[in-house]
Parts: sequence; C-alpha cells; structure tokens
Amino acid sequence: MDAHLIDSQIFGHQWSTTESRAIFSEPARVSRWVDVVIALAEAQAEVGIIPAESAAAIAGLRGCPLDLAEIAEGTRATSHSTLGMIHAMQRLLPAAAAEHVYLGATVQDVSDTALVLELELVSSLLWRDLSAVETALLDLAEAHRETPMVGRTHGQPGAPITFGFKVATWVDETGRSLDRLRESRDRWRVGQLGGAVGVLGFFGSHALPLRAAYCRRLGLAEPAVSWLTARDRLAEFASVVACATTALARIANEVYALARQEVGELREPTSATTVGSISMPHKRNPEVSEQIVTLARLVRSSAGVLGDTMIGEHERDGRSWKTEWVVVPELCHYALAATAMTRSLVTSLEVDADRMKANLEATGSASSERLLSAMSARLGKHRAQAMLHDAYREALESGRTLPAVLEGRANADELAELARIDTGAAAAMVDEVVARARRRPVESEPWG
Amino acid sequence: MDAHLIDSQIFGHQWSTTESRAIFSEPARVSRWVDVVIALAEAQAEVGIIPAESAAAIAGLRGCPLDLAEIAEGTRATSHSTLGMIHAMQRLLPAAAAEHVYLGATVQDVSDTALVLELELVSSLLWRDLSAVETALLDLAEAHRETPMVGRTHGQPGAPITFGFKVATWVDETGRSLDRLRESRDRWRVGQLGGAVGVLGFFGSHALPLRAAYCRRLGLAEPAVSWLTARDRLAEFASVVACATTALARIANEVYALARQEVGELREPTSATTVGSISMPHKRNPEVSEQIVTLARLVRSSAGVLGDTMIGEHERDGRSWKTEWVVVPELCHYALAATAMTRSLVTSLEVDADRMKANLEATGSASSERLLSAMSARLGKHRAQAMLHDAYREALESGRTLPAVLEGRANADELAELARIDTGAAAAMVDEVVARARRRPVESEPWG
Amino acid sequence: MDAHLIDSQIFGHQWSTTESRAIFSEPARVSRWVDVVIALAEAQAEVGIIPAESAAAIAGLRGCPLDLAEIAEGTRATSHSTLGMIHAMQRLLPAAAAEHVYLGATVQDVSDTALVLELELVSSLLWRDLSAVETALLDLAEAHRETPMVGRTHGQPGAPITFGFKVATWVDETGRSLDRLRESRDRWRVGQLGGAVGVLGFFGSHALPLRAAYCRRLGLAEPAVSWLTARDRLAEFASVVACATTALARIANEVYALARQEVGELREPTSATTVGSISMPHKRNPEVSEQIVTLARLVRSSAGVLGDTMIGEHERDGRSWKTEWVVVPELCHYALAATAMTRSLVTSLEVDADRMKANLEATGSASSERLLSAMSARLGKHRAQAMLHDAYREALESGRTLPAVLEGRANADELAELARIDTGAAAAMVDEVVARARRRPVESEPWG
Amino acid sequence: MDAHLIDSQIFGHQWSTTESRAIFSEPARVSRWVDVVIALAEAQAEVGIIPAESAAAIAGLRGCPLDLAEIAEGTRATSHSTLGMIHAMQRLLPAAAAEHVYLGATVQDVSDTALVLELELVSSLLWRDLSAVETALLDLAEAHRETPMVGRTHGQPGAPITFGFKVATWVDETGRSLDRLRESRDRWRVGQLGGAVGVLGFFGSHALPLRAAYCRRLGLAEPAVSWLTARDRLAEFASVVACATTALARIANEVYALARQEVGELREPTSATTVGSISMPHKRNPEVSEQIVTLARLVRSSAGVLGDTMIGEHERDGRSWKTEWVVVPELCHYALAATAMTRSLVTSLEVDADRMKANLEATGSASSERLLSAMSARLGKHRAQAMLHDAYREALESGRTLPAVLEGRANADELAELARIDTGAAAAMVDEVVARARRRPVESEPWG
Repeated sequence: MDAHLIDSQIFGHQWSTTESRAIFSEPARVSRWVDVVIALAEAQAEVGIIPAESAAAIAGLRGCPLDLAEIAEGTRATSHSTLGMIHAMQRLLPAAAAEHVYLGATVQDVSDTALVLELELVSSLLWRDLSAVETALLDLAEAHRETPMVGRTHGQPGAPITFGFKVATWVDETGRSLDRLRESRDRWRVGQLGGAVGVLGFFGSHALPLRAAYCRRLGLAEPAVSWLTARDRLAEFASVVACATTALARIANEVYALARQEVGELREPTSATTVGSISMPHKRNPEVSEQIVTLARLVRSSAGVLGDTMIGEHERDGRSWKTEWVVVPELCHYALAATAMTRSLVTSLEVDADRMKANLEATGSASSERLLSAMSARLGKHRAQAMLHDAYREALESGRTLPAVLEGRANADELAELARIDTGAAAAMVDEVVARARRRPVESEPWG
Repeated sequence: MDAHLIDSQIFGHQWSTTESRAIFSEPARVSRWVDVVIALAEAQAEVGIIPAESAAAIAGLRGCPLDLAEIAEGTRATSHSTLGMIHAMQRLLPAAAAEHVYLGATVQDVSDTALVLELELVSSLLWRDLSAVETALLDLAEAHRETPMVGRTHGQPGAPITFGFKVATWVDETGRSLDRLRESRDRWRVGQLGGAVGVLGFFGSHALPLRAAYCRRLGLAEPAVSWLTARDRLAEFASVVACATTALARIANEVYALARQEVGELREPTSATTVGSISMPHKRNPEVSEQIVTLARLVRSSAGVLGDTMIGEHERDGRSWKTEWVVVPELCHYALAATAMTRSLVTSLEVDADRMKANLEATGSASSERLLSAMSARLGKHRAQAMLHDAYREALESGRTLPAVLEGRANADELAELARIDTGAAAAMVDEVVARARRRPVESEPWG
Repeated sequence: MDAHLIDSQIFGHQWSTTESRAIFSEPARVSRWVDVVIALAEAQAEVGIIPAESAAAIAGLRGCPLDLAEIAEGTRATSHSTLGMIHAMQRLLPAAAAEHVYLGATVQDVSDTALVLELELVSSLLWRDLSAVETALLDLAEAHRETPMVGRTHGQPGAPITFGFKVATWVDETGRSLDRLRESRDRWRVGQLGGAVGVLGFFGSHALPLRAAYCRRLGLAEPAVSWLTARDRLAEFASVVACATTALARIANEVYALARQEVGELREPTSATTVGSISMPHKRNPEVSEQIVTLARLVRSSAGVLGDTMIGEHERDGRSWKTEWVVVPELCHYALAATAMTRSLVTSLEVDADRMKANLEATGSASSERLLSAMSARLGKHRAQAMLHDAYREALESGRTLPAVLEGRANADELAELARIDTGAAAAMVDEVVARARRRPVESEPWG
Repeated sequence: MDAHLIDSQIFGHQWSTTESRAIFSEPARVSRWVDVVIALAEAQAEVGIIPAESAAAIAGLRGCPLDLAEIAEGTRATSHSTLGMIHAMQRLLPAAAAEHVYLGATVQDVSDTALVLELELVSSLLWRDLSAVETALLDLAEAHRETPMVGRTHGQPGAPITFGFKVATWVDETGRSLDRLRESRDRWRVGQLGGAVGVLGFFGSHALPLRAAYCRRLGLAEPAVSWLTARDRLAEFASVVACATTALARIANEVYALARQEVGELREPTSATTVGSISMPHKRNPEVSEQIVTLARLVRSSAGVLGDTMIGEHERDGRSWKTEWVVVPELCHYALAATAMTRSLVTSLEVDADRMKANLEATGSASSERLLSAMSARLGKHRAQAMLHDAYREALESGRTLPAVLEGRANADELAELARIDTGAAAAMVDEVVARARRRPVESEPWG
C-alpha cells in the first residue's frame, strides 16, 4: 500500500531516503526477523538444545523470500505477531526442523533484536552523513573565518560577526551530535532473549549460554538483564537522533532566514529544472531548508512519544511496546532524510559575501558595540551607554545621522569606530572549533 | 512501498482500516486532486475564464487513472508538488484544454481543498463509529445500571458503584466527542482558492465569483478570507479527534485494568483462532485494548504537532504546511483504527457480574463510606472519620476483623451498614446520562 | 516562595498578569475552596442534611483569612490535601458546626469545583482581551484594506497583497477563537460532587437534590454523571486556549519577522525608557512579540499534558489528576499574559506603509503573477509559465533586467503589468471578514 | 507571590524540594548573577581591562542582599533583564567601580553562566539521590534474587520470575541514568561570555584571555565558540534528566500496580498520621508512587519544549531563549522532587513475599512455559503449543482443571512441571546486574 507519505511514489523521497526505505521495507524486515530466528537456531544447536541438522535446515531459509500475503493472512487469523511467519517458515522445512524453529522465544525477542540491528544500520548512515556535514561545515568555516556579516539578535542587526563564526557554532553542535551518537551506542547495541517473561524459563540451565551464543552470532552485546520494559535504550537513541536532527534544522532555518530576498546572504542551490512556483515564475524557494525543519519537528515528536512509552508495566506492556513499532522506523526515516538533505544543502550552499558586507554597511549601527567600547574608556561604560542610547533614539526620530547627532559629544577617534568593522574574536573561535574537530581521533570511528 | 507500518501487509490492519487506506491511498489522493482541478476548470468555465469545451475536456479526466510513476518522475525533476501531475493531465488533453488546466491556482489551493474533502470523509466514518460506540455503551449502561462493583480510587478499592455508572461516564464523554465533531465542522469545512499569495491576483474581477463557484461545486463553504497560514482549522480538527480518541482509550485502558486475572471483571472477546502467546499457551491478552491506547497516544502526538504548525510565517510557510501533509493522514488512520476497534470491543465486551460482586465482598471495606455516614450521624463526621481511620489501621495491623475491632465503639445498626451494598445515586446518574443522550435530536446528524 | 518565575518579583510580569496572580495566589485559592465548602454546607442545610445554624456558622467563614502556615503543617502531617484546611476551619467553628463542615465530600469535589470557578474567571478575562484584540485588528484591517505590501511565501517575496488582507486573516482566526471559547463553555462549566467514588453514597436519597442545590448556589450547571476521570472537559478547555493563544503567537511572530530592519514594515511600540541592549545602544528589539511566541509554546505544552492525563484509571487516578493541579493554573497564567501582551501590541502597532510600498517596488518581481496572467491569455498558461521561468533565471544569471530579457517575447501591454500593483481580491476579503465579525450577535456575549 | 504550585506553602513540597527551592529562590538567583558579575570583574582586572580596585569593590558585593523590589522596578521601567540589577549594584559602589560593573557583557553571558552553575548544583543532588536509589535497589535485588512471583505480560499472569529480577531491571536502568548524567556533563558544564553577538567585540585583543579567566574563576570549562543559539547542551541535559526521572516513574508505576489490593505484593510505607481518604476511612493510597509518575510526566513535557527551542535564529532568539528561563528551573524542581520521593519509596518499600507466592500458585497457569518446554521435547514445540493452547481454552470453557483436560495427552512427568516453580535465569541475571553495578569505578564519581 501507499497510504502513508513515506510510501508515496510521488512524495516519498521528501520523507525518507532510498536507503531508509531499503532498511524498513517489509520484505527486508521479514528477512531480518528470519535472520534472528536463524541465529537463535544456530545458537541452540551450539549449546545442544536442537540438532545441528535442524539448525542447518533453518539457516537454509536465509535470504529465501517468504510469501508476505501468506504471512499476513496467518497474522490476522491468529492475532499473533509472528505465528504467520513461523508457519510460513515451517512450510519450507523438514518436519523435525519445523518443530525446532523459533523454539522457546517470544515475539519481543525477535522484534527487539531485529530493531537493534536496524538501529545499527541507521546509525551507520547517520554517522556517515553527519560526518560529511561536519566536514563540509569545517571547510565553510575556514573559508569564511574572516568574512564579515551582520550579527543579529532578536531578529535585529547587531554588531558584526563573521560568517565563519556562525558556521563554527554549527560545527561545534554537530560535533556534539557525533559524540552522543558514539557514546550512546554501547547502551543500546544489545540483543534481547528473554522468553516468555524475561527469565528464559524454557531453557533450564542452557539459558545464559544460549543467550551468549545468540548475541555473539548477531554481533550484539549481551544485556545484564532482559530489557522488556526497560526502554530507556530506545528513548535515548531517539533523543540523541532528535537532538542531532534538530541541530541540523537550526542550520536549515538559518539558511531560510538569510535567504530572504531582503537579506540575500545565503541561497540554496537550485538546478535549472527546479520550479519554485507555477503561479509566480520568478520564485526561488528554500524548500530543502524548509523540509529539514519539518522533518526535525517530526523526529522530535516521535522521540517525545518514546519518552512516554518508557513507563511500561510489568514484564511486557503492549500499550508501550507496540507504539515503538511504528514510531522508531518513522523517526529513522525522517532523520535520515533530514541528514541527507542537510549534507546536500551545506555542501553546495551559495554564500554571498558581497551582500553580507553591504548589509553590514547598510545597518549604520553595526559598530555600536565598538563605539560604546571606545566611549566607555573616556566616559565610563554606563554613562556612555545611556548617552548613546539617547543619541540613537534622537537620530531615529529626527532623521539625522548618528555622527551629526553626536557632534560635540563624541570625539573624532570615537566616531572613527563607526566606520571600522571589528569582528572581535570570531576568527579565533573558528580556529578553536576547527582544531578541536580535527583532533577527534580516527580510531573513535564507530561506524567508520 | 511498504516502509511504514500503515502500509505493511502483515501489520497494516492494526494501524489503519480498509476504509482509511482507501481514502489515503496514493491513486485515491491523486484522483481527488484531479477532482479539485476539474472543479476549478468547471468553475472557470462558469464564470467565463476558460471555454466550456476546455472544462469539459478536463472533466473527462475524472476517474481516469494517471500514471503514478510518470507523475513521480515529473515531481522529482521539477521539485514542484503538482507539476508532475499537471503534465500527466496535459498529456491526455487537447492542446487548448492543456493550457486551461490548473489555471491560476497554486499547489495549496488543490492540496488544502482536497484535504478538507478527506477530513469530511474521515469525519463521517468517525461519526458513524463513535455513534455506534455510544449506542453500544448506552445499552451496556442500562443493562448494568444496578450491577454493583468496587469503585476504585488511586488503584485501591473504595466504596461501591455500579458498572452501569462507570459506563455512563464513558457514554457522557463520548457524547461530548460527538458534539465537538459536529460543532467544529463548520469551521473547517471550507475550500481554499487563493492563488499565489491568497488574494487571487491572477483572476482580476472574476476572483470571488470563481471561488464561490468552485466551493459550491465541491460542496464546501467559502472562507471569508484565504487561510493559507491560518491553520487553526486543522489544529482544531486534530484536537477534537485526539480528544475523542483518547476518551476511547480511557475505556480501553479500563478494560485492560479490569481484565487483569486478579480482578477479572471484564474480558475482551476472543475468537478460537486467537493465540495469546506462543511461549505461554494459557495466555489471553487484552491486545485490542492495548492497541487502542497505543493508537490514541499517536493521535495526540500528531495533534500536538499541528498545534505547533499553527505558527506559519507570511502567506505560506513550507516548514508548517508540509508537516501537515504527513501528520493529518497519519492522525486519521490511527483515529479510524482506534474507533473501529473500540466499536468492536464495546459491542462484545464480556462482563462478569459475579466476579464484580465477589470482589466487592472480598474487599471487606467497600462500605466504609456508608459506615462513616451512619456513625457520623451519632458522633459527628470528623470524629467518626478519625475513629474509623484508627480502627481500620488497628484491624490491618492486628489481623482482627473490623467488627471485632469496633466492638463497643460502633452499634449494631452501624455495623449492619458494612454488609449493605449501597451504590448511591449510580443508577439515577445512569438514567440521566441515557436520557440526555436519547434527547440528542436526529436532525443534528451531520453525517447521518 | 518565589522559586518559579511566575512568582518572581523581577520577572513575574512577563509570565503572568496581575489578574492571573490574583486568581491563583494561595490565599485566593484557599478562600475559593472555603467558598465551595460553604456552598456545600448551605446546600446540605437546604435539603435537610445539616442544621441551618451549622450552615450559617460555616458561611461565616467566608472571606475570613485562614492561617496558611497552619494549613500547610496539617497537610504535610496527614499527607491529605484538604485535612489541614478542614482542621483550620473547624478551629474557628462551634463544636456542632465543626462536625458539619465538608460533610461527605471528597477532595476532588472541592478542587474540581473550585477549578471550574477559576476557569470561569480566566475565561472572562480571555474573552475580554481577545475581544479587544479582535476590535483592534478590525480597525487595522479596515485602515489598511488597500495598503499594498509584498505577499511572501516560503520566506520569499511573491505577488502583492494588502496589509489589511494579512490582518484580516488574523481577525478571522481570532473570531474562531472567540467562537470556540463560547461554544465549549457549556461543556466544562459544571460542578463536581460525587463523594468517595462518584455516586454520592454518603447521602442516601438526598444525593441528587443536594448536588443540584450545591451547583445552583455556585452558578454552575449539573453534570449528568460525576466526571472524576472523564477529563475531556479540561483537555478541551486547554485545547481551546492553546489554539487561541497560538493564533495570537502567529500575529506576534509575523510582527517579529516584518520588524526585521531589512524589512522594516512593522514595529513594536517602545517607550523612551525601554533599553533594547546594553551592549549595543542602537537596538530596538521586538521583545513583546518574542514573549508572546514563547508563552504560546508553553501553553501548548501544558495543553498537551492535559491530553495525556485524560486517560485516568477507575474512579480517581492521582497520576492524572494531580498533574492538572500544576498544569491548569500555569496554562492560565501564560495564556492571560500572552493575550494581554497581544492586546497591547496590536493596539499600538506601528505600520510603515511607505516601507511596504518601497519593498514592493524593490522586489522587481512582485507582479509576476499579473504578468503571467497577461501572457497566459496570449500564449496559454503553461507555455507562458515555462517561458517566464526561463526569463527570470536568465535575468538573474545575466544581471540584465527582466524587460530587457523579455524584449521580443512579451509585448508592451504585457510588460506594463510589471509596473502595476494589483492586490486582487484583498480588499474584498477584508470587507467580508469585517462584515462577518460585525454580524456576531451581541447577545452571544457569554462573559460580556 | 505564591501563584505557582511550586511556591505554595501548602503543596509546594509535592512539586519541589527544600533544596530545589533554595537553589531557585529569587534571592539566591540574584545572588548567583551577582557572583557571575563579580567573576567577570575579577577576570577583567586580571587581564588588565579594569583597575584592581574596581574589581575589589565589586567583589565586595558578594553575599550582599540587593533590594528585589528596587531591581524589579528597574527591570519593568527599562524592559531590560539586568539593568535593574546593575543599577542596584551601582548604587552600592564608588563611582569608578560603578562604571566597571558588568562591563561589555550582555544579559545572556550572565544568565547562561548562572544557569550552568545551577545545573551543576542540581546535578550533584540528582547524582546523590539517584546513587542512593541504585544502592537501595541493589540491596532489594539481592535480598529477593530468589523470591518467586508472577511475571506478567499484557497485564496478565505469565510464567514465574523473581522479585529480584524485576528490581534488577530497575537497577540496570538506573545505572544507565547515572552513566548518562556523568557522560553528558562535560558537554554542558561550560561558561558563556560572548558580548553583544558572541564574538566579544567590546574587548579587542583581551577577549579570549578574559573569557579564559572568567571561566576558570567560576570553575567552568571554556566553550570552543559562544553557544548563544546552539542550545543542544540544555536539550541534552533535559533529555538525560527526563530519561532518568521517567525510569524512576516506571518503578513507581509498578509499585502502584502491584499495590492494588487485588494483587497486594508491594506497599508504600505509610506513617500513622497519614490519612488516605476522609470519605473512606479504610483507604491506603499509593500517593507517593502516583506523584512520581506525575512529576516525571511534567519533566518530559519540559524536556520536549527544550527540544523545540533548539532552533534559535541568528545570534540570539528571545522566542527560544526566554522559554528556557521558565522551563529549566521547573524541570529541575520536578526532577529533584521525583528523585527524592523515589529514594524514600524504594528505601522502605514493603514487599509481601507470601502474597507473591500465593498469587503465583493462584494463577494455575504460571508454569505453562515449563509444561510447554517439557511437552515440546516429546511432541515438538509447535505441536505442543497448539495442543496446550486448545487444552487451556477447553479448561476455561468447561470449568475443568487443566490436568483433567490433559489426561491421556500429557504424561505424569510433564504434568509435574505444573507444580514446579522455575524462575529460570532470574537469579543469575540479578547477579550479573549487581556485579556490573559494583564494578563501576569510584573515581568516576563526578559529584562524589
């Protein structure tokens, strides 16, 4: 079906990526569940619970496409999440092996473990694209470490900064996103095998060796204890991804704001075939930037839900658990789409340094901080501030220029500050950010 | 694709309904957009903007399936949301009509109007199923107006109520959901036709007559002014649906709680083929109830997003607007699924009146309110309360029965209250709720 | 204490109003609870449950300030929400009356009923200020029904609108806020009297007459059934207020955006003593607009919480109920502050019509919709659109003017459209909005 | 004032702690801002910007209570967040020093830095109480590593676990909360000093040495670049705290559920003076557990807001920034209250091991996983499962016992499994959790 926009032929690419859809397409997910079931069987053979022949037969199902319609029918008939799949697998197995498939496990063992495998795939893509974003931003920060532009607070022009300084705040934040992604990984990259209620009662003394073998085969760590309703792992993953995506959305939102025609300092790249508007032929819209903001909002919303579902009752709580089934993949689609779009955006962002300079000169007040500094030396800071505050207001109301108004109150050296563009420690901060980012050890690459 | 659970063959039925998928499937949505474009052309012919022949040719596209792959390709090539569709339509039209299709409209005119048509379809299904829920609950309330059970506060047994009283609170709340659905309708059931920026500049003096004809043909009211970024309409719709769905989730959550084996007062109906657990053969899980709670949570999350996106900038803001594209359909799928499931749940809910009675007797304290009332008449309320508070604590700690502890402090008539099950005004409140619900006029049926 | 910003001497006025703090100050709230207890006693005397003398003695406590420290100590000692208050009242009463105070009621009877009385006070203030906002906006819309300005979509200049048109979308949305406030009122303006578990078991046959008298004395309607865990009433109130406040935030956010120095079309009023920045003496910041956006976000967050707490278990659920205690007053403070600030903002908003005109002329593309319309008549719409799309791109890339680029492709009449500012149906839509608003009946004033 | 529940004399203790109110009371916060201003002056003297005498005079203001009413008046008059405070400080200083106070800094330098100092105080309390929770839970897990009880999934009894196993999942999750608190600290424990727009333009070449001295004096790390709108630091802090608090709420919610009289396995401690209900003298309500759930919900709501406000525009954005002013302290109050309450709850939790055992025996189906395991060995797992599924249903519908129904289908050894309580790997998992927790290095104590 195509009743969700992620699955839309026409619009799906705005809400997901080719890679995210490959991870979460239904055949891929069923196949991943089968892989987990195979690992279970092989681990069971390893510890002596089932015969090696059964495990081999079950392992033969790897990559073998199951009939989704048949599984779907079985699922609806039994109202059980994996029985349809089990029956489909059994139909392909010799009788003995058919009794050994999915032995002693519960749905959550398979679905949680497969989910962690999916998070691993998603994280590696996020890592790749976030790293590429960081690299592109580092280049941009260095290239523009001294490109002056208006700093703006409360939406109003203030003292000068450099564009590189602004980008450095993006780099710095992106670096923390990468750090969080890496640091949190060990907390969630664990398998799940608990059986009915988490204590693996089905397996007697084989329980823990079985779990160890199962996790090892899947490349996952073993949890200290089953985490059936201890879902902080997923909530943390979601928070980390939401934080990373929202940091990207801050960049995109800034591009949107600085691409306003009245400002004109940044522009999204466009191709010749892009049509901004069919009713206004002149339009060039920052639609990628908008979409990144949109996607980040959805990621945060999903992450919020996973905060709520941390409160599960007892040893399994469908009210919380099933919520994850829909929310986690959604969040991954949106985050991957936002990251890929940001990568593309920052890689080819158009920076108009001339316009930045022109805007700075046009504000006529960009150097008020410097003027204040100069006059403070003579008058005291707060007296200077009060005097300048009045002078600016007087200039605004009278239509006279500030120098004219200040005639007799400021001396020539002080007024000269008005013409000087001083971007303070901007370049030095860029250098510090770059140095810290370059210092990050290569061996720390978790998905390098 | 099937990368979202709504579109899963295996699990889609838990997150949507056959009807919701029919409304929001991609061919249906494209077809609805085409219908809006046809209405536009017919309205333009009516007011003399385009020739009747062109409108007739365009109207000939109704129901004609367009090639989604072709539209998708055009959409990606132009990065424009409807140009792919326009080109696909043009290819099927004579040259003259091809220039008259989608004349002077903007994407949002089509997408907003089609969305309102979808809300209308969704609302009529919600109305139907919520009404059925109300009816089933009314029957249940009347049937159990005098069925005594434990009232519980803070998760602890308290004084007696009747099951009908509990159901009456559900009916009452559902009735308000229906009221809100009906009352809010006139606010959102309006068309959108604003052109580039909302003032219909393309059409000169034809503008408002055109809009009137367009809305009339689509069965929608005309807005006083274009509502491109005034999105309270959608936020309200979402709030109303979220409130209605969450009220159902309260019912489902109560079924879940009272279906605990230790309580055993309610049970979800199950069929013979339902398998509760494959690791614990005895299990009967309230999975429908759980799923309703889950779905309502997702609906609230979506509604929350639509609250945020009310703050759109200027005359169109992609950051807010596009968010709606994914969130509104999601919300409708989840709400329709929750409502349908609740309808099924309450229609065949298993009520164990014997167990209710047994639980009431087992608490041994169900009548503490009555005992207090009786003793208050003699001792004063607060003295009686303090004395009984101590007596209960003493009984608990000593293991003696309450009557034994109260020996000499309470008289026989007072102690007799302990054996009496008095459900107070429960039945009278049921009657009042039923009377008010029955009083709702038939002519108020908006989607009857 | 002053550990929350609402209670800050220094900053409290940014997060609440003098009126909101008067409603929710602790002495006022205790006094309101006492009023409810008095109404209960009087109603009990009326239906013959307690002697008239007791009711009179209890009524004598009206306005009598209780000792908060004493109440606080009693509350902490008993861990009971009203026992401290009850003891404080009893200490002021003759012995007989002391036993008749708060007879048979539970905490939630008092707290819910008092809360509804508070919502009534809050709503009347919201109604007053929202009405004043609407009136100010109506004046503004009419004054600027023909003031041309740039319409903007995706943050980019588009075709012309009028400022009045923009304001009309604000008026229209505010009108719906007023409608919702009025329509929802009957659903939440009800008393609560249910006793221990909602069925008033304490009172025998007096139950419903007592509740009727109690509600009548408090000026509230009677519910059909106790609504202890049916909290849609509060969730709806919160949604309505959140929707209203967020609609105001859209206005404020637009002022913020159009007050950018690079745009300069709107300005917040400032007084001579306002200091925008102490490090940049020239700054004039739209801080009121920012604060309204901030407050609305907090209101939505609170409303979201009340959506979640609709799922209460059984006959009382402290997990949900107590959440309301903190969230509802917060929401009211923030909403009242936002509404009062918006009233002030829109009443004295500075509109720079000259700058609006200048910006319109500066875009050089404002009339692309008109040009397209003119050329569509000759070339067909889609051919015209494609040609103009290319021409604009060519002009942008070559630095030539559009007329130069169009030389030979457009005729003189068509090019003349570029100089024409056509605001389409803007003024007519303003008129329609004004007419509908003026048509709202005076008798519908719920809190007039 | 006391218009927020945190500041209520009567109820404040349920929403905050004595410690949290001490941190965030207005005098304490003003004093903290003064401390930051002093550190700024001392750092300025250190790098030679102002005379040492001025710095000494300014440092003399430490601990000196300023007049809040005076500050408040100045704040309202200027609409500036710190000018009132500056004037109050100046009035206490000699003329020269008065000009050197707060030199070249902006509000956000002071408010952000003070906020980080507050987060440090809050974190150390959270660390202390979470560690105490962990310790108490470790004791509980070890004490009950073999105490059998019913495992429950979907609210229904399942196979046996031990209470220690359940507690181990709490310990494990709490341990991760501690890890996150520690790991995230280095990201947010940084000062802020950026001046007007972040580049410290006021200070010329003194800028970075000044910032280094300022941060060093305050015990904070230096940021690589000003973080005026890079607010991931706060969002992460909030996420970590929300995750930790919600993990506690899962414990509290479980206590609530298992304290139901029908289950009776856990009980909140109560004191003799606690009054559960004044209308039902017998009630013992799990009100602390409820309140923890409530508080965690509010913390998550606040954390969600801080996710949204990460998208700030340009170099300062009041719409986001000021939101933090109210949300961060709220979040800290609620989290500290929840943590303190949980500490108290788990330290004296009443565990009824007899009732746990009795419930396990009463389910009559606790060993269905073991029975299935035993029969699987003979019949094959899926055949055994299907047969037992039917048998349980037959038993339920016929009222016969399961052994009677299984007569002839199961052998004696298999049926013997029904009587055996096997808690699988529960105790082993407890041991693993304990071992891992004990292994956490002492030197890793960040606030030890």
